[in-house]
Amino acid sequence: MAKVTGLEGVVAAETDIGLVDGERGRLVYRGYSARELAVRHGFEEAAHLLWYGSLPDPGQLQAFRAKLAAARTLTPRLRRLLDAIPERTPLMNVLEAAVAATAGEDAAWPPTAEQAIRLTGLIPVVIAYRHHQTNGTSWPEDAREPDHAAHYLHLLFGRPPQPAHVRALNAYMVLAMEHGLNASTFAARVVASTESDLHSAVAAAIGAMKGPLHGGAPAGVVRQLEEIGSGERAEAALRAMLERGERLMGFGHRIYKTLDPRAEALRAVAAELAGDDPWLDLARHVEQVAVRLLAEYKPGRRLHTNVEFYAAAVMRAVRMPAELFTPTFTAARVAGWTAHVLEQAGHNRIFRPQSVYTGPQPANEED
Amino acid sequence: MAKVTGLEGVVAAETDIGLVDGERGRLVYRGYSARELAVRHGFEEAAHLLWYGSLPDPGQLQAFRAKLAAARTLTPRLRRLLDAIPERTPLMNVLEAAVAATAGEDAAWPPTAEQAIRLTGLIPVVIAYRHHQTNGTSWPEDAREPDHAAHYLHLLFGRPPQPAHVRALNAYMVLAMEHGLNASTFAARVVASTESDLHSAVAAAIGAMKGPLHGGAPAGVVRQLEEIGSGERAEAALRAMLERGERLMGFGHRIYKTLDPRAEALRAVAAELAGDDPWLDLARHVEQVAVRLLAEYKPGRRLHTNVEFYAAAVMRAVRMPAELFTPTFTAARVAGWTAHVLEQAGHNRIFRPQSVYTGPQPANEED
Repeated sequence: MAKVTGLEGVVAAETDIGLVDGERGRLVYRGYSARELAVRHGFEEAAHLLWYGSLPDPGQLQAFRAKLAAARTLTPRLRRLLDAIPERTPLMNVLEAAVAATAGEDAAWPPTAEQAIRLTGLIPVVIAYRHHQTNGTSWPEDAREPDHAAHYLHLLFGRPPQPAHVRALNAYMVLAMEHGLNASTFAARVVASTESDLHSAVAAAIGAMKGPLHGGAPAGVVRQLEEIGSGERAEAALRAMLERGERLMGFGHRIYKTLDPRAEALRAVAAELAGDDPWLDLARHVEQVAVRLLAEYKPGRRLHTNVEFYAAAVMRAVRMPAELFTPTFTAARVAGWTAHVLEQAGHNRIFRPQSVYTGPQPANEED
Repeated sequence: MAKVTGLEGVVAAETDIGLVDGERGRLVYRGYSARELAVRHGFEEAAHLLWYGSLPDPGQLQAFRAKLAAARTLTPRLRRLLDAIPERTPLMNVLEAAVAATAGEDAAWPPTAEQAIRLTGLIPVVIAYRHHQTNGTSWPEDAREPDHAAHYLHLLFGRPPQPAHVRALNAYMVLAMEHGLNASTFAARVVASTESDLHSAVAAAIGAMKGPLHGGAPAGVVRQLEEIGSGERAEAALRAMLERGERLMGFGHRIYKTLDPRAEALRAVAAELAGDDPWLDLARHVEQVAVRLLAEYKPGRRLHTNVEFYAAAVMRAVRMPAELFTPTFTAARVAGWTAHVLEQAGHNRIFRPQSVYTGPQPANEED
């Protein structure tokens, strides 16, 4: 029984939800290419697919959007709870606390897709409310966007968002929704395996997502794009970075040996929106130059564009502040976490691995 | 790469903290028999051992008790938070929320033993405050017990506890503190492996503990003891149960093939307290009769007394309400969870197992 550090390569679950195929550069959600979903569909349709196993027809989509919209309510009870969480608590911990504290109304086992909808509706509301609380800005009482990503942007910025931003954020959220047994999804399944409740499982996942080794942040890429500033400066700026031996942020991936399909999808969306937002245009230009220069400076390394590169472009395009990058990732990934918890509940077995004791033996043996 | 359901038999970590030896009926904490720790030492000394790797000397113990006592403060901020958590939220979810929401003051990475002390002090305060809130009883402002378990009992019942109860609860808490890579401890390590924070890891563990497949509850054993009621009735009552084909609660264990060392330790403590509490005396008598009758009715089954049997006796003896069994288990196990998080942080590698995709392939392949 050899120890497997970090359980690397150990299969901990079978899943119908997602396939991460690093060799072929494929990301598949229940039989659909995530790239196609991101280009052709929005967050709600992809979430419906993860939870119910099929894309919604127009009538189903309308009903589904209405349910999700109803779940995006800032109730007086929720406001009171968020007001009582200490100011210094980081936003990711606020999300954990809010998810745990609202379990009373919605924590029956087994978990249901209805519970998942309500929890998914809760997340952007908590993020946006806390954001206004922290900044002393006012809550937009009249925000009523039918689209989930649009509503989130309206809540954050207090005005109806631009269609190009809604389109880009939807694509990002579809692509950030699910990615196999990463640490947060795995944590959610471990907690669910005790037959706890959906809120506890998602709170655990948020806790894992908070860690910089997982949730990370495309903040480095944003800084890089801001440093470059304009298309004309791209080649000179990137060359200077490479000459100084600096790493270009947003290229190369642990799993994907070829182009990250999420980067490819976001590039396609950015191309479609050409001229609609300067940051998306800049990202496309910088990518072309960077790929060419990487081949010149680091031949044979196959450093492809990764999802963080375009995630950063989208975040910058929609004016998302850096401290909301990981929370926004959370608002998307909650769809995947809840789908995994529903699946875990369907054929459950408690997670109970072994440990090897490497400490001292007792001096005086009993028995 | 065969799938291992529930990761059974897979080694997920090396640990110096605890050894669960089911074959030989041993439970070892850092080289000390848990049985001996429970009989000779209290919660604080065992927690010190788990966190610092050694039992405290008298001076260290005094300083350690003072720190833990200071952490057991119901601050106005904590009270406001707990008042804002909806009434219907189950106590275990309240604990998760309180732990997550207080991360702001104490969530720096890497985690420290000082953080663990503060978090361990927080748990009984949250349980007791919520208990009074739910029951409309008043918070005992003047409780000042130097002993952790005694303070918890004082907070719950509003008066200084009996020494026999303090002794029994201490023994229970020492024995419930650590038990290898169970689902909650594993969840804590998975969350910590992303370099999140101690509060997030413990909140995840509480979420796992909440599940009936893990945290369970010795409530069934308590009902059985109450049904029996007195030593004279034990044989007739147990015979009747066995004749009706009912399972005797508190006997047999998945891991321990011999006597559960935790049951043995609690029996020793109960023997030492003979005459001090009728429930401990009843438990010892019922156990003797039950073991004799099980050998008669189910020969060869080796159904030994398990920890739940004596945990139930202790819970009943100290007048713990059934809804506080799992939270009390949590108040003890937090020492083990935090020790595991400290250890994980010491030589960390993110947990990132594999999943096998069993869903449909995309109809139209890209590329």
